Amino acid sequence: MSILETIASPADLRQHSMAELTTLAAEIRTALLTKLSATGGHVGPNLGDVELTIAWHYVFDSPHDKIIWDVSHQSYTHKLLTGRKQAFLDPKHYHDVTGFTEPRESPHDFFTIGHTSTSIGLASGLALARDAAGTHDHITAVIGDGALSGGLAYEALNNAAVLNHQLLIVVNDNQWSIAENHGGLYQNLKLLRDTFGQAANNGFKALGLDYTYEANGNDVAAMIAAFQAAKACDHPLVLHVNTQKGRGFAPALANEEAFHWHAPFHLSDGSALHPATGENYPDIILAALERQLQTGKPIYTINAAIPGGFHLKDWQAAHPDRYIDVGIAEQMSITLAAGMVKGGLRPVVFEAATFLQRAYDQLSHDLGINALPVVVLVRGGQITGGDPTHQADLDAGMLSNIPNLTYLAPTGKEELIAMLDWALAQPHGPIAIRIPAGPVTSAPLAADWSATHQHVIHHGQQVALMAVGSLLPLAQQVAAGLLAHHIDATLIDPRSLNTLDTAGLEQLRSAHHLVVTFEENSLDGGFGQKVAAYFGPSNMAVLTLGAKREFNHELTRQALLQADQLTPETATQAILAALSQL
Amino acid sequence: MSILETIASPADLRQHSMAELTTLAAEIRTALLTKLSATGGHVGPNLGDVELTIAWHYVFDSPHDKIIWDVSHQSYTHKLLTGRKQAFLDPKHYHDVTGFTEPRESPHDFFTIGHTSTSIGLASGLALARDAAGTHDHITAVIGDGALSGGLAYEALNNAAVLNHQLLIVVNDNQWSIAENHGGLYQNLKLLRDTFGQAANNGFKALGLDYTYEANGNDVAAMIAAFQAAKACDHPLVLHVNTQKGRGFAPALANEEAFHWHAPFHLSDGSALHPATGENYPDIILAALERQLQTGKPIYTINAAIPGGFHLKDWQAAHPDRYIDVGIAEQMSITLAAGMVKGGLRPVVFEAATFLQRAYDQLSHDLGINALPVVVLVRGGQITGGDPTHQADLDAGMLSNIPNLTYLAPTGKEELIAMLDWALAQPHGPIAIRIPAGPVTSAPLAADWSATHQHVIHHGQQVALMAVGSLLPLAQQVAAGLLAHHIDATLIDPRSLNTLDTAGLEQLRSAHHLVVTFEENSLDGGFGQKVAAYFGPSNMAVLTLGAKREFNHELTRQALLQADQLTPETATQAILAALSQL
Repeated sequence: MSILETIASPADLRQHSMAELTTLAAEIRTALLTKLSATGGHVGPNLGDVELTIAWHYVFDSPHDKIIWDVSHQSYTHKLLTGRKQAFLDPKHYHDVTGFTEPRESPHDFFTIGHTSTSIGLASGLALARDAAGTHDHITAVIGDGALSGGLAYEALNNAAVLNHQLLIVVNDNQWSIAENHGGLYQNLKLLRDTFGQAANNGFKALGLDYTYEANGNDVAAMIAAFQAAKACDHPLVLHVNTQKGRGFAPALANEEAFHWHAPFHLSDGSALHPATGENYPDIILAALERQLQTGKPIYTINAAIPGGFHLKDWQAAHPDRYIDVGIAEQMSITLAAGMVKGGLRPVVFEAATFLQRAYDQLSHDLGINALPVVVLVRGGQITGGDPTHQADLDAGMLSNIPNLTYLAPTGKEELIAMLDWALAQPHGPIAIRIPAGPVTSAPLAADWSATHQHVIHHGQQVALMAVGSLLPLAQQVAAGLLAHHIDATLIDPRSLNTLDTAGLEQLRSAHHLVVTFEENSLDGGFGQKVAAYFGPSNMAVLTLGAKREFNHELTRQALLQADQLTPETATQAILAALSQL
Repeated sequence: MSILETIASPADLRQHSMAELTTLAAEIRTALLTKLSATGGHVGPNLGDVELTIAWHYVFDSPHDKIIWDVSHQSYTHKLLTGRKQAFLDPKHYHDVTGFTEPRESPHDFFTIGHTSTSIGLASGLALARDAAGTHDHITAVIGDGALSGGLAYEALNNAAVLNHQLLIVVNDNQWSIAENHGGLYQNLKLLRDTFGQAANNGFKALGLDYTYEANGNDVAAMIAAFQAAKACDHPLVLHVNTQKGRGFAPALANEEAFHWHAPFHLSDGSALHPATGENYPDIILAALERQLQTGKPIYTINAAIPGGFHLKDWQAAHPDRYIDVGIAEQMSITLAAGMVKGGLRPVVFEAATFLQRAYDQLSHDLGINALPVVVLVRGGQITGGDPTHQADLDAGMLSNIPNLTYLAPTGKEELIAMLDWALAQPHGPIAIRIPAGPVTSAPLAADWSATHQHVIHHGQQVALMAVGSLLPLAQQVAAGLLAHHIDATLIDPRSLNTLDTAGLEQLRSAHHLVVTFEENSLDGGFGQKVAAYFGPSNMAVLTLGAKREFNHELTRQALLQADQLTPETATQAILAALSQL
């Protein structure tokens, strides 16, 4: 019988010896690797904190005592120990749990979390509430060294010292962000590791926090002792723990960044089960930037700790002096770019829309008001299903309503390149470009090419279909379906999500009485509502198709498309129904 | 002849002795106080950095050398020395300059800035661009100790160390934020002051930065020497300077917070020229919270360094244990509240919409996804004119499109109180409440009171006027004007800016063919566009009245209302014109 089989809840850990808990750690690693090699997931972070998690649950009494995992992508062992091990052991149940903490799953989880740097603030609030209630549960936040580069983590550390409640802040230092760390604070973390926490210059103490160090974060007994000592502390305490990302799997140790998150892989050598093939938008973008660079344009690529998704490591290898990773610091990525463009450079910032949310003020105040021509390439505009923390359909509502900012939505390869070239040539203001979702599509640029004017692909009558970005193929299918109903619909690529081509819209009036907008994002604050308001005080009807303003929990993309009337059949039916009412 | 009369540009400073420059500082203080007592403005910060500014312009060569002022509310002496002194000496020209740096005014200003914590990031970008160009101008960022609590400042400090360009970071430490400072870092700043910069534990050095200290920040000669020494440094250097906020004006020294920004005042004793009188919304809000607290509800007020505008100092005095100021750290204000509400408390966060932009991700990821019933009171929803950095009409586009978040817009006192009580009783999700703009209005609550259902104030026909929040009086005037055209318009208070009462909207169909929405915010992403999309696929016309998506530079409120068709005459004309087209 394995040790793991004896663990139904955290309390069962206390029935075992240190040797058995060490065996348990090995069993858990095997379980994690077996599952993750099949499903994909956050490999490195979870292999790194197995012992830390076992030790915490050994010493503390969850859920009375509470642990808040930063980002919570490293919470697999926590899930495994808190009644959810079937989801890691039985392939039929692999998808019973999400990849992040989820209160819907377990009373041991307190928040749905997927963005970085929030744990200390959340835990501070719980600690304040506990002391208001007069109870004595212990609150712990676990934050990685990478997440420490985010401004919110610092704001929370700075406040924790003066709020002065019992709060254990575990800094899980595996010497990696998603990619390598960037920033002066990492010199200090290294100094602290090198001096076993004894260095006089200590960034945590400088913020008024008590501090202790544990060098052996992958030793269960050492971590149990560290937590037992920390448990006696009645005020904020930073427990700085040295751990190894990817521990126990050689390919993950050899390539920490690739195995931060990895798609399904071969256990033998870590190679991908389904290697990506064919043309892809990141490479198309980098090739376009390379051409610009060769013409002498001072292109710089900037990202905030997520180079992988944009293939920026290739760019970094070719142009190390034209590559900047600011760490998990989206605010800084935009403000730095504002300064750079003012100084005559042409920075291009690569962001996932969901993380770019953290730079909203910088997009508005630094770029918008100052009308600075920074180019931001946005991964978003997709109905993804899965985790609400990484929902990619809220980009339009966030970006489209900032004055002076133009949000472009290319439908495919040629438009993407042309828009990028145009954005880097114009001096007028910030341009965000939504990288198309789905496989690469290709179509010759229209003769009347212009980044901010709509493109009429087909002139019809009665109904005009305006399809943003990667929904153009859907609108083409809908147009074909409408033909069967003797409707020859006009088909339009609006090109911009937030700039109405009013001359183009006016031309629709004579031959159409219904405009239908298609957008793969939440409708609220998006393109269709702008079109609806434009035609509002007239007899032109407008039907807006897109996503609802909702956070979705673990639904499939297909179910959402169906519910949002974004399949050929549902969209066609919605249009026919609207026509019948007019 | 005064020294000031001899200064046409910064170079003229170098014609004077140290004694004369000290005299100049006194002359500038007199000029500042004379102007600010008449116009109002940022008194304390500008009285504090007169010598620092003279010394910087003496040592460096602006605009070849570049200085970036954080927030830039302390840049009055800089403006005075860079060709704009008439705006401080001649009452006829007092309004020729803004209260912030403004590239439209002068080549000595590089960015329009009004939010905190951006200077180091902007200056880092300029420094990077300078080194890419191979020129040798010096770049300086000046940041106050208060602004250091913002996460962006930390992200930028952390990156500055590794970017490693020449960059002088002046920490202007006057020991105050807008109000008193909050956070552990201020213990470190005090330690550094107390040890004349010699303490081993140094938060700046912990981030990998070089550091030096100047105790006499209000001594021109000392500051000149400090800048001359700093000028020789070829890498990032923090020059920590001790200055006195409000120096030279006893009332400002006696009440640093009140004189951070002050309306026109008597030079004799600092008392207000036009004291505020009568009922006001901050007091109404605090009285409502007091009642909730007395019934046993665990109310906590939270703000991010701006207690004054909400009268929160009164609350703090009465309930010090129920008051939290997180410093300039809007992200933390929301994330902390998320933790507190999860722990059973009822936090109420007070924010200016323009600064709340910095917490967009926390509103969405921490509050929205987790559906946590934090209440946020928002100062916004006003067409303000003045500075684009403090524009108050972008709140709806920011807040309304976040899933699970309800944005309420009370029209006056009774609705505000009822909404606040309702928000604090419900468990379902975050509620933002827009504090009404303008003077307090009062009307009995409707018998059918409900926070999220619209209220039909008058049942008419043909045209329905839906007026959000403080635009209800305008709609009432418009309704009166329409009567003269034999139109008996329906009048509706929608109550929520982002939740459509679809049953109520449906009831309009039978007797109306035009809905007119009024909102005092940018139309894009706002209420009217949602209504327009709702009625889009039908024959109901919708006219949306509100502000354009624009940053406005120093226009008047009245000019903007006129341009936006938000005066009784312009709105009525717009409605009649729309009707004539249907």
